Amino acid sequence: MSDYSLLILPGDGIGPEVMAEVRKVIDWFQANRGMRFTVSEDLVGGCAYDKHGTPLADETMAKAQQVDAVLLGAVGGPQYDNLDFSVKPERGLLRLRKEMDLFANLRPAQCFNALADFSSLKRDVVSGLDILIVRELTSGVYFGEPRGIHPDDNNPENEGGRVGINTQRYTSGEIRRVARAAFELAQKRGNRLCSMEKANVMESGILWREEVQWVHDNEFPEVELSHMYADAGAMQLTRWPKQFDVIVTDNLFGDLLSDLAAMLTGSLGMLPSASLGAPMDNGRPKALYEPVHGSAPDIAGQGKANPIACILSFAMALRYSFGEGQAADDLEAAVERVLAEGVRTADLMGPEGGTPVSTSEMGDRIIAAL
Amino acid sequence: MSDYSLLILPGDGIGPEVMAEVRKVIDWFQANRGMRFTVSEDLVGGCAYDKHGTPLADETMAKAQQVDAVLLGAVGGPQYDNLDFSVKPERGLLRLRKEMDLFANLRPAQCFNALADFSSLKRDVVSGLDILIVRELTSGVYFGEPRGIHPDDNNPENEGGRVGINTQRYTSGEIRRVARAAFELAQKRGNRLCSMEKANVMESGILWREEVQWVHDNEFPEVELSHMYADAGAMQLTRWPKQFDVIVTDNLFGDLLSDLAAMLTGSLGMLPSASLGAPMDNGRPKALYEPVHGSAPDIAGQGKANPIACILSFAMALRYSFGEGQAADDLEAAVERVLAEGVRTADLMGPEGGTPVSTSEMGDRIIAAL
Ligand SMILES: CC(C)[C@H](C(=O)O)[C@@H](O)C(=O)O
Ligand SMILES: CC(C)[C@H](C(=O)O)[C@@H](O)C(=O)O
Repeated sequence: MSDYSLLILPGDGIGPEVMAEVRKVIDWFQANRGMRFTVSEDLVGGCAYDKHGTPLADETMAKAQQVDAVLLGAVGGPQYDNLDFSVKPERGLLRLRKEMDLFANLRPAQCFNALADFSSLKRDVVSGLDILIVRELTSGVYFGEPRGIHPDDNNPENEGGRVGINTQRYTSGEIRRVARAAFELAQKRGNRLCSMEKANVMESGILWREEVQWVHDNEFPEVELSHMYADAGAMQLTRWPKQFDVIVTDNLFGDLLSDLAAMLTGSLGMLPSASLGAPMDNGRPKALYEPVHGSAPDIAGQGKANPIACILSFAMALRYSFGEGQAADDLEAAVERVLAEGVRTADLMGPEGGTPVSTSEMGDRIIAAL
Repeated sequence: MSDYSLLILPGDGIGPEVMAEVRKVIDWFQANRGMRFTVSEDLVGGCAYDKHGTPLADETMAKAQQVDAVLLGAVGGPQYDNLDFSVKPERGLLRLRKEMDLFANLRPAQCFNALADFSSLKRDVVSGLDILIVRELTSGVYFGEPRGIHPDDNNPENEGGRVGINTQRYTSGEIRRVARAAFELAQKRGNRLCSMEKANVMESGILWREEVQWVHDNEFPEVELSHMYADAGAMQLTRWPKQFDVIVTDNLFGDLLSDLAAMLTGSLGMLPSASLGAPMDNGRPKALYEPVHGSAPDIAGQGKANPIACILSFAMALRYSFGEGQAADDLEAAVERVLAEGVRTADLMGPEGGTPVSTSEMGDRIIAAL
């Protein structure tokens, strides 16, 4: 019997509520599928700041390095908005990504048939949509040095007298490793990869394009590769997203484009993500799984949150960390069944009605469907 | 009788065809409204490279500095794709923006009622849409130094051995001046401004947010100001774009977000833009007007291109450079009338049919409607 270690970081806002449902799902798999999970729990984000004065304590960071997978709920809330940049809730998340070296962020944008009418896009544009954005997650302008805000007093043209700097910086190696991850994923899907950058205005974009092309030509010649400027990519995602299979792009473009792609589906509360790094000694990749949605402080603690994105993030953990592809399929199928039956948390309640349920009822229904 | 000087740069692809229609419109205003235009014409982009070995000759640059307004068609084409970065067609455009110091790029995204069904978004989401994106155009990662691709051979972790760098750099003064332009525009519209950045991960974004807030508090306290992270902005533009009035954002975010906003309307061939700088001695701002669409090499020379975006760019010139607001209104109304009559270039031809016309017939119809 295999033993899987998990660190659960529920975080802020609706994080704890949705994570409680994931724990039920974990228990179900332990009881019914002979898996054994060793689960520990800790703080990240605003709640960690409240307790430790930092959004991610060193001990938590150390634990994250030792487990097979980290599951994260969400971070942030209005009470932390005025904190100093260095201790904002987001820094906890960014530290996890960086120190675990989770370079490949997988964001599937899938439109669930039962929910296609939720999209602001026309039904035929999004129904059946199933694309995967692979976002580089540990480099680029998020982490490049030099960075900061400095006085610029000696510049008479600079009214206000400050300058803000960030550095977009990519090495060949950083680009190649995320490209490889994207090509491998494309091979398991539609065998098509589209790489996005701004090579027409940025040298880092030229390097990006050349290195992705190099990986294609030398290692994945049979995958269909195309290149697109990121602004055209935003347009094409809006116009006809089904033209894409897998998209690979840098940290900042990936931030915008994956959120755009998520919104196409109309049901943010449904979308999971996986952030993967290099293989550990046991062969499993370093990994963190989290829903795409945020901490939704406005509805926190009211039993209104949709736990599906977090549950589907756990399905990704089953697939990518534990090689339990069948279990992942079963869990995803259970979610689809519950949706098809018309079971709906508040965010999924449309004009055509349905059976309204709370966060924990949704979890129970999914388990019943398993 | 006032005298207006114009430099016309038709550029590549469909640029010359659509600009020919603008010249008819200019002639009409000369003949019927007592305006006098002094028009010169020159090369930019690939055609300038073919003739001069540079996408913008120094003499052309000098001319652009002297006129009241520059009208540009479009630049680029597949035959120039493999040119060196420094002489690519886009560099001609970027040089104009930078040396004329055109810091405020105005990109209206308006949905024409007659064309609302062209959008990939639902009719109720986009019909009546009328938002304005103000993009900073002369700074940020487009122009920041250091930049380039360098060898990184001594880094054993860097397979491939190169590093690509660009610098996102904004001064307080650069942010304040574009914020002022955006606040002034908001005052003439719905009095609401939303500023977008990534202050949660980038220090340049923090500076952006603080300086926009400063301009608000000190100079435009009566305009309603909000701040949004750019990824959330991409989502909200997709979900419910009518929530916005004016949006102000930096060069790179503005590139993506304005293209996204343009695509919401479903009719790229309709969208104009204005790029404005500081006032010249005659009180008119430095200005360049261009359609949002590209050079569309696939349909160039076939009389299929839609000249409306370029004609509406001239309408913006009438309004912002020449203070001819009434003439601009009349020209825009003429375009709406022609569309309402069902007159359609190929790109506007939908399932409900219409009267198919060529590029030049569309120009003639608009003039007839004037
Ligand atoms: C919370 C924030 C730092 C983060 C990011 O910008 O990467 C979020 O937007 C995301 O996409 O995961
Ligand atoms: C052609 C290109 C350099 C340009 C840009 O990136 O600014 C274009 O996309 C635009 O938005 O005007």
